[in-house]
Amino acid sequence: MSSLQEGDLILRGTRAPSRLQAARGTEKSAQGAEKPFQQVMDVSTGDPHRAGMKPVSFVRQVLAACVYPKLLDEKSLPLDARQRANTLLGVCSGRSVGSYSATAYGIPYVCKSVTEFIMRRDGGVSSNPEDIVISSGSTKTLLMVLHLMASGEGETRTGVLTPMPCPHTLPTLLNMAGLTLVPYQLLEDQGWAVELDELHRALRTTRGHCSPRAIYISNPGNPTGHVQDRKSIEEVIRFAATEGLVLLADEVYQDSVYGQGKESLSYKRVLFEMGKEYSKKVELVSFHSLSSACMGECGLRGAYMEAVNLDPAVMKYLRDAQAPSSPPVLPQLALEVMVNPPTPEDPSYKTYSQEILHSMTTLSQNAQRACEFLNDLSGIKCQPARGGIFLFPRLHLPPQMVEEAKMLGVEADVLYCQRLLEEEGVRLGAGCENGQVDPNFHIRLCVLAPSDTLDEILARLHSFHLRLLERFP
Amino acid sequence: MSSLQEGDLILRGTRAPSRLQAARGTEKSAQGAEKPFQQVMDVSTGDPHRAGMKPVSFVRQVLAACVYPKLLDEKSLPLDARQRANTLLGVCSGRSVGSYSATAYGIPYVCKSVTEFIMRRDGGVSSNPEDIVISSGSTKTLLMVLHLMASGEGETRTGVLTPMPCPHTLPTLLNMAGLTLVPYQLLEDQGWAVELDELHRALRTTRGHCSPRAIYISNPGNPTGHVQDRKSIEEVIRFAATEGLVLLADEVYQDSVYGQGKESLSYKRVLFEMGKEYSKKVELVSFHSLSSACMGECGLRGAYMEAVNLDPAVMKYLRDAQAPSSPPVLPQLALEVMVNPPTPEDPSYKTYSQEILHSMTTLSQNAQRACEFLNDLSGIKCQPARGGIFLFPRLHLPPQMVEEAKMLGVEADVLYCQRLLEEEGVRLGAGCENGQVDPNFHIRLCVLAPSDTLDEILARLHSFHLRLLERFP
Repeated sequence: MSSLQEGDLILRGTRAPSRLQAARGTEKSAQGAEKPFQQVMDVSTGDPHRAGMKPVSFVRQVLAACVYPKLLDEKSLPLDARQRANTLLGVCSGRSVGSYSATAYGIPYVCKSVTEFIMRRDGGVSSNPEDIVISSGSTKTLLMVLHLMASGEGETRTGVLTPMPCPHTLPTLLNMAGLTLVPYQLLEDQGWAVELDELHRALRTTRGHCSPRAIYISNPGNPTGHVQDRKSIEEVIRFAATEGLVLLADEVYQDSVYGQGKESLSYKRVLFEMGKEYSKKVELVSFHSLSSACMGECGLRGAYMEAVNLDPAVMKYLRDAQAPSSPPVLPQLALEVMVNPPTPEDPSYKTYSQEILHSMTTLSQNAQRACEFLNDLSGIKCQPARGGIFLFPRLHLPPQMVEEAKMLGVEADVLYCQRLLEEEGVRLGAGCENGQVDPNFHIRLCVLAPSDTLDEILARLHSFHLRLLERFP
Repeated sequence: MSSLQEGDLILRGTRAPSRLQAARGTEKSAQGAEKPFQQVMDVSTGDPHRAGMKPVSFVRQVLAACVYPKLLDEKSLPLDARQRANTLLGVCSGRSVGSYSATAYGIPYVCKSVTEFIMRRDGGVSSNPEDIVISSGSTKTLLMVLHLMASGEGETRTGVLTPMPCPHTLPTLLNMAGLTLVPYQLLEDQGWAVELDELHRALRTTRGHCSPRAIYISNPGNPTGHVQDRKSIEEVIRFAATEGLVLLADEVYQDSVYGQGKESLSYKRVLFEMGKEYSKKVELVSFHSLSSACMGECGLRGAYMEAVNLDPAVMKYLRDAQAPSSPPVLPQLALEVMVNPPTPEDPSYKTYSQEILHSMTTLSQNAQRACEFLNDLSGIKCQPARGGIFLFPRLHLPPQMVEEAKMLGVEADVLYCQRLLEEEGVRLGAGCENGQVDPNFHIRLCVLAPSDTLDEILARLHSFHLRLLERFP
């Protein structure tokens, strides 16, 4: 497997050092000290375009023609892209992306396209436009829901069962909304699986401390790369049903399941296939986003949520929550293209499919290669990822470094990441940001990047890690 | 004056009815009843593109090439638009508008362009990038500031001196932030001027009720069209300084001053030209937006605020307030183009200037024509506007209609607008939404629309109003 060999070469240092030296230049720090690298490579967050991944052409062609409608006649743009742009301009007031969104919860036509996507995805399970709310990013959408659930103080304060590790922005959002984070541990040795006993244990800890009202699930897992199977999803749904918890399903990376034998199954689909006992009862909010793996359009800021079984008054609140502001129009149009991509009879289908395939292949190969590379490093143990765009390897740090971190008043994983950044210009995420409070340390890296970029990052990490081991033998 | 004659013709009904009849079609209500119009014309809010105004080509050309960088080589786009796009892509991580904004307060390069614009506008008064926060719309920016000022309960609850009438979203925003609206009346008979005695009177009313901490000013006035002169601005600044109030200056329509002998003067400039006694002391936050008159890019959602003399800790809060989300990238690039338009040596300058001139001429002529038209209608009195994009005429409604509204439990101006919408398909804003609680009724209309659209709206309003007078003689 060629990509793995490339990683191996780097590991043995026969090729990587020379590439590293080539990249090292004259970047100066604020203090004027010369840095041994030309630019910082940042894979601490899920921002694929920053790392060099390319946008999907069809999405950008449609948006360009929506932005500058003279391009509707521009023959160099594919016909279907121009036709789509024409259709989408038709759902903008005054045929301009410069008019306000028709409603605070999104353009009705886009909401409808979203439901059609969901129904196709879920084998025909019905979906209503009234259950969709579009916003400028899933952070925003989630925050609206969290704010809505906030109430009480002390024992009555709303608690949210939260996976450990969790998406690195989640602890901040829970805090902003005034909710209590109730941790449940994912099982690292089982590839970060969700375990029912652990959910029950976590729930018991809330007695006398807070009032648990929801459980947050990230599937495919951010930052773990775990992908739940049907049985695991059913267990969580039954747990939520029995305990009367709202299910908050972060399914932003639903388009990026690549583990062998793994499939992308939505909570909505499983819920509805479990029968009316569950599908009429369990309150579920599912989040999806333009920042998904294959789109990677983080900077556009577009996301939707689908909410089922919520009280109509609650739903009305969510649909009005963004008023008197309204979400930007362009990302809504991009969302429409994301959920309604070209089909085999469309001129853009071939290019579109090739681009998506390229992106998925890069992701899948990178995830495997980086995992094997990391596991070859002494003191690092990485669970293989089956989906999503992150790896979350465990660091067994030298005791002296842990001591040093204590003296400096920082977590040892933070110190590791700081030193890596200073010495090699690579920015990874410290595991403590993902809520980890166990005695083990972790780092977080996004592996959705061009393979040569990943090579470079791994090579720099390799150099740094070996020096660290030499320093603290 | 030809445009006025056109209004006259409509008034006399020699031409308007036939055009109206032509426009009347078969639109059906939800109940299936046939409506006497083909489509609703909505000028209740400031949304120029919805009303049919065209976007500025240069802005859209630059954005299109940023969205789809293959257009950087597209000869049909002006060279300077492509060069600008190339520069702006250079300040996006990974050269993609799909990467997250570099910071939660905006892309540093754009912040810097904003300060350069402010310095040019204000005759060289300095402006610091650290004082700029970019967000997805001035509603959002304002809300961040309002949230920050919120504290106390009862007597200690933060109060904000608020003009009556005020922008129609402001009462909601104050309420969302938990602030007390302290009304000060603008002087309608003096073209909605701000009066110092009234500010003092309003401030006295707060004793024992709330703790006034800010004064909100809209200049050019939304929805009044009033433009303050230097003396008036100085009075407000001195008042704020003496009373220790934060000045919240809504200057979104600073690009649309058209009254004879009127000039656009920013609060920042006047503050700094009053000397250090004021410029080192008064806390000022000024708001500007892509939704301004000449851009009219409401759907893109982009705005900035400049804050001076704020405590550094407060400023840090404002700059972090949008984290962990960040504002969308594309509207930031549009903001850059707005504050840094083509100059005379650029190929796009001529087209750009013509488009801006057309937009301003349309606005100015519309405002004058609509004002004269409205003043010719019995029972309507409209103050002439000198800037901004709204008119806010007073309605002297028949007592029977006021009675009818009371019985229905709505404000009489709301009933007027409802009937107008039902009978003629024209949506205007009811004055009570602008916070008006005096015994007079008002309506709000945006006059930044193509002139034939405005003709049609005025013709429909005319028909409706005459029927109303016949019904209640």
